[in-house]
Amino acid sequence: MNSVTLITGGARSGKSRYALALAQQYPAPRAFIATAEPLDDDMRRRIERHRQERAGDFVTLESPLDPAERLAAFPTDTRVAVLDCLTVWLGNLLHHDPNVDGLRPQISRFLEMLDAPPCDLIVVTNEVGAGIVPHNDLARRFRDEAGTLNQQVAARADRLILMVSGYPLMVKEEVPR
Amino acid sequence: MNSVTLITGGARSGKSRYALALAQQYPAPRAFIATAEPLDDDMRRRIERHRQERAGDFVTLESPLDPAERLAAFPTDTRVAVLDCLTVWLGNLLHHDPNVDGLRPQISRFLEMLDAPPCDLIVVTNEVGAGIVPHNDLARRFRDEAGTLNQQVAARADRLILMVSGYPLMVKEEVPR
Amino acid sequence: MNSVTLITGGARSGKSRYALALAQQYPAPRAFIATAEPLDDDMRRRIERHRQERAGDFVTLESPLDPAERLAAFPTDTRVAVLDCLTVWLGNLLHHDPNVDGLRPQISRFLEMLDAPPCDLIVVTNEVGAGIVPHNDLARRFRDEAGTLNQQVAARADRLILMVSGYPLMVKEEVPR
Repeated sequence: MNSVTLITGGARSGKSRYALALAQQYPAPRAFIATAEPLDDDMRRRIERHRQERAGDFVTLESPLDPAERLAAFPTDTRVAVLDCLTVWLGNLLHHDPNVDGLRPQISRFLEMLDAPPCDLIVVTNEVGAGIVPHNDLARRFRDEAGTLNQQVAARADRLILMVSGYPLMVKEEVPR
Repeated sequence: MNSVTLITGGARSGKSRYALALAQQYPAPRAFIATAEPLDDDMRRRIERHRQERAGDFVTLESPLDPAERLAAFPTDTRVAVLDCLTVWLGNLLHHDPNVDGLRPQISRFLEMLDAPPCDLIVVTNEVGAGIVPHNDLARRFRDEAGTLNQQVAARADRLILMVSGYPLMVKEEVPR
Repeated sequence: MNSVTLITGGARSGKSRYALALAQQYPAPRAFIATAEPLDDDMRRRIERHRQERAGDFVTLESPLDPAERLAAFPTDTRVAVLDCLTVWLGNLLHHDPNVDGLRPQISRFLEMLDAPPCDLIVVTNEVGAGIVPHNDLARRFRDEAGTLNQQVAARADRLILMVSGYPLMVKEEVPR
């Protein structure tokens, strides 16, 4: 049975670097599923730079809207995939369909996939709910949806890790049977 | 001696659900002290829906301004009460009296009550200080007051729990004597 | 070899008080390096009040722009210094030079100093990245820089502590050799 690890934390808390370090402990081939959408040139350059930094170690797959589908199509010899990250994926979904209810099927498919992932999964997400309640209605909805999604993924994860200034705090760890 | 448990965390981190689960381990009667004020129809409906979800398991008491007084009037056979939540209560106080100093007596009464609570108490609060400093003066004051109140309650609590994506991290635990 | 302790957490989570309590365990002389700049009368009064609260226990040194230089000039009998705090220092640097690259030399000097501090150091910082992504471009840059700086200091620290409502969670602890 393949495992799911969820890595959460604030911005620039070292989540992605830790996720990559965990994945490096696996033999190749390793996959990196990037949810960031290259909406402008600056973003395109950043995505490309990050891809090159991982090159050799990871096969990068872009999937801004349906990472579950991406994972379903994986070659069977892939041992580990990093999915970076849940909140950017959720932001993309809300950008393409501000009606939250329209997102439910895609989110459900993702959660179902977590019950039997095609390889070990290391999922990165963001803590966005520990500041002042935002005035902006969409920001508030995003914050609520992100917190709910984080809980749903954590409930299905074998390990839940909170990153603090680059270091991991283990919050949940299922003992392997 | 009755115990006090403080549960903190960001928005949608599973604080209320965990508080209810802890309280369910007690025999009835159990109380739920809701600090939310039904200011509009949408809020009224949400409060009513939550009340119905708890029905049978909890007696719900609304107390947007003075939960200490509410607790003092408890029937003596109540074994546990969930107070949900401190930051909404503080927001109500600031809404009714933006002059912070006017809040001190109510807050002092609440803190004194924690030294000898009428039953075991499970208090829910929010982390609101881990984002960027807000521009808005009132938001900044609320953030400072909430952090200070959280510290004051935590200092009087037997257990302090930080929720992360639905899972508890024990921060403080007094060994029962 | 002198040690470095990094204390992080949200606003009003008890970071400074805990830093002072740790430093009080050392014999005098103890130093307090304040990075706050007295930009207006209100701030001047707050800084002065805090200075008087510490008086007798700590020698207060103000250093809003170059705490590394301040530390280098320390009398050799100082056993411990509290630096409060990193994010205010970073804010000062960005205020005086909004071009982030202009800050690199000062930050590099500070990080180098951490490899061989002149006395035991207790550094306070803030978590600013666990709320919603700020709209404001400068706020977003500050948030990224603060997270990166926190990681860089944590990597050089012997202990990393996360404060939650006044209580410490140990995130990293190097066993002394």
